[in-house]
Amino acid sequence: MLRRNISPMHSYEDDARCNLPDTGEPLYGRLAEYYRRIIAAGTLAPGDRMPSIRAVMSRHRVSLSTAIQTFRCLEDAGWLHARPRAGYFVRTPVPPKLDTVREPEVPVVPDEAQYVGLHEKVSRVIARAAAFPDALNLGGATAVADLYPTAALQTLTTRLLRHRPTLLTEAGADSGVPEFRQAAARRALAAGVTVSPDEIIVTTGGVEAVNLALRAVAQPGDTVAIESPAFFGLLQILESLGLRALEIPTSPTMGMSLEALEIALAAYGNVKALVVVPNLQNPLGCVMPDERKAALLKLCMRYGVAVIEDEPYRELSDSPENAKPIKAWDTGGHVIHCASFNKVLAPGMRLGWMSAGRWHERVRMLKFAQSRHNEALPQLVAAEFIGSGAFDRHLHRLREKLRAQREKTIDAVARYFPEGTRSSSPTGGLLLWIALPEGTDSEKVFEAALVQGIRVAPGSIFSNSDRFRSFVRISCPRPFDHSLEQALRRLGHLAGSVR
Amino acid sequence: MLRRNISPMHSYEDDARCNLPDTGEPLYGRLAEYYRRIIAAGTLAPGDRMPSIRAVMSRHRVSLSTAIQTFRCLEDAGWLHARPRAGYFVRTPVPPKLDTVREPEVPVVPDEAQYVGLHEKVSRVIARAAAFPDALNLGGATAVADLYPTAALQTLTTRLLRHRPTLLTEAGADSGVPEFRQAAARRALAAGVTVSPDEIIVTTGGVEAVNLALRAVAQPGDTVAIESPAFFGLLQILESLGLRALEIPTSPTMGMSLEALEIALAAYGNVKALVVVPNLQNPLGCVMPDERKAALLKLCMRYGVAVIEDEPYRELSDSPENAKPIKAWDTGGHVIHCASFNKVLAPGMRLGWMSAGRWHERVRMLKFAQSRHNEALPQLVAAEFIGSGAFDRHLHRLREKLRAQREKTIDAVARYFPEGTRSSSPTGGLLLWIALPEGTDSEKVFEAALVQGIRVAPGSIFSNSDRFRSFVRISCPRPFDHSLEQALRRLGHLAGSVR
Repeated sequence: MLRRNISPMHSYEDDARCNLPDTGEPLYGRLAEYYRRIIAAGTLAPGDRMPSIRAVMSRHRVSLSTAIQTFRCLEDAGWLHARPRAGYFVRTPVPPKLDTVREPEVPVVPDEAQYVGLHEKVSRVIARAAAFPDALNLGGATAVADLYPTAALQTLTTRLLRHRPTLLTEAGADSGVPEFRQAAARRALAAGVTVSPDEIIVTTGGVEAVNLALRAVAQPGDTVAIESPAFFGLLQILESLGLRALEIPTSPTMGMSLEALEIALAAYGNVKALVVVPNLQNPLGCVMPDERKAALLKLCMRYGVAVIEDEPYRELSDSPENAKPIKAWDTGGHVIHCASFNKVLAPGMRLGWMSAGRWHERVRMLKFAQSRHNEALPQLVAAEFIGSGAFDRHLHRLREKLRAQREKTIDAVARYFPEGTRSSSPTGGLLLWIALPEGTDSEKVFEAALVQGIRVAPGSIFSNSDRFRSFVRISCPRPFDHSLEQALRRLGHLAGSVR
Repeated sequence: MLRRNISPMHSYEDDARCNLPDTGEPLYGRLAEYYRRIIAAGTLAPGDRMPSIRAVMSRHRVSLSTAIQTFRCLEDAGWLHARPRAGYFVRTPVPPKLDTVREPEVPVVPDEAQYVGLHEKVSRVIARAAAFPDALNLGGATAVADLYPTAALQTLTTRLLRHRPTLLTEAGADSGVPEFRQAAARRALAAGVTVSPDEIIVTTGGVEAVNLALRAVAQPGDTVAIESPAFFGLLQILESLGLRALEIPTSPTMGMSLEALEIALAAYGNVKALVVVPNLQNPLGCVMPDERKAALLKLCMRYGVAVIEDEPYRELSDSPENAKPIKAWDTGGHVIHCASFNKVLAPGMRLGWMSAGRWHERVRMLKFAQSRHNEALPQLVAAEFIGSGAFDRHLHRLREKLRAQREKTIDAVARYFPEGTRSSSPTGGLLLWIALPEGTDSEKVFEAALVQGIRVAPGSIFSNSDRFRSFVRISCPRPFDHSLEQALRRLGHLAGSVR
């Protein structure tokens, strides 16, 4: 960390007289953040006496109640502790001593029973969450609107409509607007994937792309290999298409176990496709190493299994240059690559796309039959934004913010969650996969948290098996602040008390 | 027709000196239209000598070339004929002596072979048409942008985005935006259907709605009864979902034959659903009479067959009050009602919706799994437009324009198409179903027309059988003008020369 060339004491006194920046947070939260920085910088060291409540009131011209809330907030976060009759003293917060989530068990032939899976569990959880629309949403996978380039997209939309108002009243292009397909193709090229605009089909989000990919390569009754844990939406898609999910153990650091996959492919002859999220897997947040991506493709080709690669998060990786799509190794069109701008650019614009390799014509026909063309306007807006330098600048900022949000959330989990809690260590994105102490029923945590105004995703919906019953997925969609900290504290308390 | 209380001659002289209204058409077209009206009103009667070219030039201050084009245009349309060395004389155009298309054959148990139908024919026709993007499109089912309220929608979109820019960067509501669902529910109420906003699910166009409805009520391998001829998109949907189409003969005036349907339901036990377009059937353009709608529902309930009602065109009916949805008779939730604003408001906004009766929860789940929520922005724009009186005023104008376009197109077909051609007499919308003389191969007409820059829809794609091989569907998407007249003339010539 860079140290400023002024004496700590001087800086501290100076800063104290400055106005606190207006971040939109309540005053006590900003004041607490101010002291947190002073402590973190070493200006106030562990063991030092904190200025008295009265001193804080007069120095910052705040009320008694604000000063008390500030102290409580710092105490909650572990930066202060009260000594009876002596006042408040600075302390170093409990170091995040969170263990990482465990590797999956040694691969064995998966139990066939696990893919019975009528997935009403997912529907139930979604419906239950929808009944609490005002809950603090830590159960989703998109960031809050503030983290996306709202104003720039608004300006572009308005301008485009002024020049081409009939975008609203003319039918669009069947596989997508050429400008958007070109922008997507260039983006793919930058990620190491050679694909022409003609090979790109625009879809309603990445979800429609995965649906179409599965419909193109598999028939009802077929089996599809997936990661375990897997994005619950995928389990729902498979069920709705009459496909059977074969869950392959997946490492929180290396991605899907190739050893387990090979055993499964050898044991079951009816696996038609594999769906994989190689970069920032949901919920694990891991990036599969390059050599494993190449090996996975080779293995699937050997067994004649179509590879469907779902890539909603790649651009959120801390180092996207290390997060190549598997499609980059695909020379024969065996990989169907599905992507989306929902999580990285604009959750309200529903922009997905895919390049379907050998299945291109079939996917085109299925897309036409399923929902025709998508709206042209958002495609053109996105194409223009992506084509400018603004997209990369936005992504850079977004990644930095998400990294900070993840780190602070992990710290808070370490402080407030019960002994024995473990966390994933994602290298990008906004999702944390949290293992609560063994025996914790995450559906009960989910329900109790909802009632207290906090929404998380219970681990049980990430598998047709019961394997992740004690897990929760917690997302980091918004800048960390006091209210978020308090929510995580309540959540930690619930996780420790619910069984 | 109201007669103005002035002498015809006076009116004619007066009008001639007026400026011609600027309709956007070329000058000669407007001048021709001006004289066409004068002739139609009887001001210039059959046998009268037409003013000379020179007189027309000086009266309207137009060039020789414009005057000549005007005369040629009137001659082409049958309003003038040239007598050598005597000049041009008025004549009544050949009276449209077009017969209406025939009723289908006496119902018999349908041949099972007809629903083998791998519908690659449709894909081939669509791909072929896409290779001629500049062709005059008489093969589609939406009107040109000029006929929709482009400017009003642009203004609304821009204003909404100014107030709520995060519509672009926030995830939308899963079953659709409440405002839109309320607007759709009110619209349904006005059509005699009682449905609450909560029962409405927003979809990507009506096509996604029909897909979801079929997926909710039928499994791959099941049989679905449909109209014959049917919208080719439906045949494609059925094929893509692994469903078998059972084609029921359908009258060009009364809609699906209930007699044939009953015979078919009694003969086949595996019919799970029926898809019907009761109002402005595509391609026939007919509206099923009320008592037949009620009887159809009763019959389907008796046989336990789910009714999927597809309603993209209802609001284009000349008298929408006579075009009630079947859903209006449904008290038990047996009808899945699918609708869309694509054809009536904004082809670029992809707004569809459905109310799924007993299958509501299943459809909700399928929609979520298939493509999540739709964009909020166009839903809010449409809700506002529909809620104002502007929508009804727009519909009124649109219906009037479509009626004029249909009538002029039928006139032109009567003039230019070969002896023995028959046409449907739709009571709304923009589609004409034309029976060419027996033995005409409409796919050859389609191909030859494309090469000449005209796109129509060959009858062969409206059935899995060969029954409509000599039909074409011609749409009336744009104001009738000279170039359209010339195109229909060429088309008529092709239809007469291709076998």
